[in-house]
Amino acid sequence: MSIEVMPNFLKKRAFLTPSRTALVYEDKRYTFQQLYVESVDVAGRMHAYGMKQGQYIALLLSNHSESVVILLSLQLLGIKAVLLNTRLTTEELNYQLKDSDAAFLITESLFEEKAKQLNVSVVLKNELFQISYMEPPLVHEVALEEVCTLMYTSGTTGSPKGVMQTYGNHWWSAVGSSLNLGLQESDGWLCAVPLFHISGYSILMRSVIYGMKMVLHESFDVEKTLQDIKSEKVTTMSVVSTMLSRLLDHLDSQLPSHFRCMLLGGGPASLSLLERCVELQVPVYQTYGMTETASQFVTLSPEYSLSKLGSAGKALFPSQLQIVDSDGLEQQPLKSGDIYVKGPNVTKGYLNKEGSHLKDGWFATGDIGFVDEEGFLYVQDRRSDLIISGGENIYPAEIEGVLQGHPAIQEVGVIGVEDLEWGQVPVAFVVRDSPITEAEIIQYASSKLAKYKVPKKVIIVDHLPRNASNKLLRRSLKEWIKGGDTNEN
Amino acid sequence: MSIEVMPNFLKKRAFLTPSRTALVYEDKRYTFQQLYVESVDVAGRMHAYGMKQGQYIALLLSNHSESVVILLSLQLLGIKAVLLNTRLTTEELNYQLKDSDAAFLITESLFEEKAKQLNVSVVLKNELFQISYMEPPLVHEVALEEVCTLMYTSGTTGSPKGVMQTYGNHWWSAVGSSLNLGLQESDGWLCAVPLFHISGYSILMRSVIYGMKMVLHESFDVEKTLQDIKSEKVTTMSVVSTMLSRLLDHLDSQLPSHFRCMLLGGGPASLSLLERCVELQVPVYQTYGMTETASQFVTLSPEYSLSKLGSAGKALFPSQLQIVDSDGLEQQPLKSGDIYVKGPNVTKGYLNKEGSHLKDGWFATGDIGFVDEEGFLYVQDRRSDLIISGGENIYPAEIEGVLQGHPAIQEVGVIGVEDLEWGQVPVAFVVRDSPITEAEIIQYASSKLAKYKVPKKVIIVDHLPRNASNKLLRRSLKEWIKGGDTNEN
Repeated sequence: MSIEVMPNFLKKRAFLTPSRTALVYEDKRYTFQQLYVESVDVAGRMHAYGMKQGQYIALLLSNHSESVVILLSLQLLGIKAVLLNTRLTTEELNYQLKDSDAAFLITESLFEEKAKQLNVSVVLKNELFQISYMEPPLVHEVALEEVCTLMYTSGTTGSPKGVMQTYGNHWWSAVGSSLNLGLQESDGWLCAVPLFHISGYSILMRSVIYGMKMVLHESFDVEKTLQDIKSEKVTTMSVVSTMLSRLLDHLDSQLPSHFRCMLLGGGPASLSLLERCVELQVPVYQTYGMTETASQFVTLSPEYSLSKLGSAGKALFPSQLQIVDSDGLEQQPLKSGDIYVKGPNVTKGYLNKEGSHLKDGWFATGDIGFVDEEGFLYVQDRRSDLIISGGENIYPAEIEGVLQGHPAIQEVGVIGVEDLEWGQVPVAFVVRDSPITEAEIIQYASSKLAKYKVPKKVIIVDHLPRNASNKLLRRSLKEWIKGGDTNEN
Repeated sequence: MSIEVMPNFLKKRAFLTPSRTALVYEDKRYTFQQLYVESVDVAGRMHAYGMKQGQYIALLLSNHSESVVILLSLQLLGIKAVLLNTRLTTEELNYQLKDSDAAFLITESLFEEKAKQLNVSVVLKNELFQISYMEPPLVHEVALEEVCTLMYTSGTTGSPKGVMQTYGNHWWSAVGSSLNLGLQESDGWLCAVPLFHISGYSILMRSVIYGMKMVLHESFDVEKTLQDIKSEKVTTMSVVSTMLSRLLDHLDSQLPSHFRCMLLGGGPASLSLLERCVELQVPVYQTYGMTETASQFVTLSPEYSLSKLGSAGKALFPSQLQIVDSDGLEQQPLKSGDIYVKGPNVTKGYLNKEGSHLKDGWFATGDIGFVDEEGFLYVQDRRSDLIISGGENIYPAEIEGVLQGHPAIQEVGVIGVEDLEWGQVPVAFVVRDSPITEAEIIQYASSKLAKYKVPKKVIIVDHLPRNASNKLLRRSLKEWIKGGDTNEN
């Protein structure tokens, strides 16, 4: 068979619709043509600096229009981008730089001090932009199986693994999404999640593949978001639960009618949050995906957003999904098991890891869920977060969902803590909206949950630990317990 | 690299959006779920009859909902469909049956007499539907490189060649089109072109891949078309010039606002026709494609429908285009040359033909055109129709376009006829709307065209020869000249 090749995505897009708006960042606006010209220019400077096709080059950059240009320049040169999380410690960064054998690190003045402690040749983006342009050897055609990006999964245990995402992974992910959400010339996607995460990078790829405007924010800001949804006619936005919750809190009127959907990812959402969205007429599409699947591969189709509230939906057109029991057999509907996925959006594998990441072509997500009789997926939890108490399985997200339904509670994180009698017991960390005692919370939980699921302890805190994409870090809660660092008040 | 596999398209679509309307044919309506159930049922009867995965099975069927079911049943069984043109002679049909080594022919009572003269095991669809169902071995996963359909290109010279279209060809064609035209849940595509042609079959594939309603007509009927555009809320329709022209003639009010576009294919269109569309506010998108590219691969993007009137547009996202001169080098903009195409929608090759159909990965379309300075393609003519007169190249479509601009002229076909002095000279066949003489037509042409392009003879006829998809058959005009069969009046 022949290897599928395609024109460089940005070059092709700029050729097809040069004058459409590609990117809006603060007071800067780029058409696709301008973005292409700028990216070729930066590619020429990278070339002059000695950056070469086939290399891995690491990036430590915050969301900025210049970061977009740098990412697209690397694609034009056939260089693989190692996307570093800006919140990592130098030790963690050095691990990833070493593992990927990154030839250079491109960063910005904000991270200059941190970069000095890294074992890599560092160049600041401002310095890079001042190097004289040399005509670069552009990669006009790209094989879909080529690696485009490398992102390390944090993982809850063990050392981080570099997920190789190919051009094909990104392409199929974007196409699968468009077959579900539709595609209109007037679409615009707001990106307030990090570009170094697949949630943000996938918006950039959709923008280029669809010919769609991306409205980029440096970070999530409620007021700016609500303002840009109106003034930039944003139709879609990627959010995680906390972002959505804060948006709902600040919503003083209905979202404009051009707004099509909140794409809600980053872990299971609580039913109470989804019900609030229905009430406030905020169109929300639950999704499920991960770095290894180049973003969402399960999304709830428009017609089911109400009747299947709480479900992440069905696997997108090019993807397949399977729930597998502990014997490796396909699980019956309504029974929980390991979530497996197959499709052209699934990573080529982990860098420097031996053995296949696939089992008969299927990838084990490590997450747990079930499908209902119609095949809708309900993601229950991350496998590593599963609490087993007296032989019963407890899914933290279920408890969190219930507690978040209480009007005095803002957010909740639940973990399992070792217990001599039961093996593990659930413990809840609660951020309050208004005064409520531990006893009242436990009483509320008892009225809603089977006894074994009721938290044995409730700890009042003033914030929850989250990563850059706002995912709850349950392992940090475990550290808090161990270290007594629970700022109880 | 891994071979891309995907779920069977119809099965996946029925799983994703079971209750959406898939097909409307006369008084019958099918949801995707119903279409799937019916197709599995027919697959079971085919299986009981002895039809097997991997076989080629030929179809001699007119547009009908049952034809759609049969086509989809074959996909479910992994059987390759040989799509026979119902207008062919028995001799032509026997050639294709023999070349494809078709195991069976499925046909309908309308063609029963013709089928009796064919060297193949024939089964009427009504007989097939009455065979007892046996649970079939369904192909739940399909490799994109598998052959799905075989269509013979008529070709203007030489023997017909079987074009192998893979699942991937159809998939990429549909995806490429959606990235250009957009995709909305409310879309519906009217198919009044034959399902046995790529123009019709590609609508069926888009329907299944997009989850979009297909409104199927047995044949093109102006009144029924205008009625269904309204009542079925059709948004898109595939047309060739004559269909479009007849629609414009009967248009007594503007098309409804939900109507998004006429996709105009099947050869170069005249400027006068396109200008009439602008005048009547009929949104028309010129396209260019062929059996070998699984339908359109060049389409004019929405924002250029006015400023680039007459252009077929740019190659769709996954495809690439090149104009090549007689030395095989890439031609300069504005200069005519051979049109080459590359991309995942290009056929895997011709059945039973040795040697590659590609040259360095590129496919020679056999057509002639140029790109302007911005890269927009202008298709000038089929290579075999090129008229060379006194060393000058003459493109029949240009002359036809000019003559069609005359209010008394309904349609025109131009061919080259041998001439002792000039090598070839253009001759025009004209169907009139109102009285006009040969001399008046020549005078009109002289006022618009360089002298060498003016037809040396005008022949008044009452119709033009066209194939099932309404393409003008210039080679038949040549036969008319030779046979004196010009029914001049």
